[in-house]
Amino acid sequence: MLSKNQIKYIQSLHQKKYRQQYGAFLVEGAKSVQEVLQSDFQLEVLLITEMFYKENTRLIDSQPKPVEIVSVAELERIGTLESNNAALAVVKTKENRSLLAEPDEMALILDDIRDPGNLGTILRIADWYGVKKIICSETTADVYNPKVISASKGSFTRVSWWYGNIVQFLKQLNQNPNGSPVIYGAFLEGVNVHRLSFQHSGYLVMGNESNGIRPEVEQFITQRITIPAYGGAESLNVGIATAILLDNWRRSA
Amino acid sequence: MLSKNQIKYIQSLHQKKYRQQYGAFLVEGAKSVQEVLQSDFQLEVLLITEMFYKENTRLIDSQPKPVEIVSVAELERIGTLESNNAALAVVKTKENRSLLAEPDEMALILDDIRDPGNLGTILRIADWYGVKKIICSETTADVYNPKVISASKGSFTRVSWWYGNIVQFLKQLNQNPNGSPVIYGAFLEGVNVHRLSFQHSGYLVMGNESNGIRPEVEQFITQRITIPAYGGAESLNVGIATAILLDNWRRSA
Repeated sequence: MLSKNQIKYIQSLHQKKYRQQYGAFLVEGAKSVQEVLQSDFQLEVLLITEMFYKENTRLIDSQPKPVEIVSVAELERIGTLESNNAALAVVKTKENRSLLAEPDEMALILDDIRDPGNLGTILRIADWYGVKKIICSETTADVYNPKVISASKGSFTRVSWWYGNIVQFLKQLNQNPNGSPVIYGAFLEGVNVHRLSFQHSGYLVMGNESNGIRPEVEQFITQRITIPAYGGAESLNVGIATAILLDNWRRSA
Repeated sequence: MLSKNQIKYIQSLHQKKYRQQYGAFLVEGAKSVQEVLQSDFQLEVLLITEMFYKENTRLIDSQPKPVEIVSVAELERIGTLESNNAALAVVKTKENRSLLAEPDEMALILDDIRDPGNLGTILRIADWYGVKKIICSETTADVYNPKVISASKGSFTRVSWWYGNIVQFLKQLNQNPNGSPVIYGAFLEGVNVHRLSFQHSGYLVMGNESNGIRPEVEQFITQRITIPAYGGAESLNVGIATAILLDNWRRSA
């Protein structure tokens, strides 16, 4: 049985304000909890059903941490998922450390991606294509939002992020005396990505769902790119566009 | 003001059973209604706000059809969208006509795509890449579901579909004395699509979100293909995978 205080604490983590105050977030469901147990994230507490424990005993017992057996009803009451018959972990957030793309890697820059589902999808796609660093504007959805964590299908354990002023970040990249990396940005009238040879390393900027890349960010884009259209649709969802661009990068770089 | 019977009728169309019984479905929101007004779909009635009428007078007046001015509250009460300050159209469904890919086109075959959001996304992606025909297993989500229509962002007006027994369909394709088209299917151990030269025409089969392509469908696949992975994610969402495969097809065919 969970105490009233435990329930109150866990439910408070549905909100960004309390996640920031307590430095903790929720990971829910069998797959995501299995992934976080195998990652370098630190767990505060692990709430699991009897069944989940039976099926994952070795994984759970391999690291010492407070574990409580709970019922499905309790899990669903304290968590955000409609159905969860497996597990919920309370996990410590990581320090907001700055990130730079190494000379052999591509990093993503997200300029005001608002939808948590889109951000989670982008984490999963980044992980598929081996992109390990995501630089987020302060206005981008909170990566610790349970919807982001859930949509990332465990990929949040293999990708790093930094939140901050991306205009400042790009300005500093630009002033590097050893030369600046290529900054790719998706626009309606850029170079067709089917004909472009990508650099192996650099940054790819993805803009807001409705408004695209802001002008103050756009000024730092050194290579405008476009996904060619063949039919009548006017646009692609930002998650889909990220996937297609990273696929073209991997194919041609 | 809408009559009680009108309200009851429109609300019944939230459900597949009544959409099939009445041969009608709902199109909601400014963008989708603008698109359906410019398509060959037949409207039963158009419910619009004063504002939407002012902003789209020419489009609305260009074809004779019953139009009623309603309030935002009425629109949101009878429809499925959380917010809709523009329009709702009751539209006649189309006959379930069989489809064949012409010698110069790629068609999609959907084997049990269950999630309406995924199906809507696939319609939008098909439309982006100029794919005009979608062949659906009977177990695939109903294309007239309001969530599908909404997620397709108007692309449902430019894509055709047929629902039926896709095993029978593939069997018949296979027996064509003039030679069979290539049937592409996505698997974990197929040919890397970055290295494959696609045919310009054929069929691309996409399988169920959890279980992939069924064995009885798999036997007809003549070219197994795979999206190469570079990181740790185990899978991609079916909408994302469809987008990447169609992009590779357009790039190499």
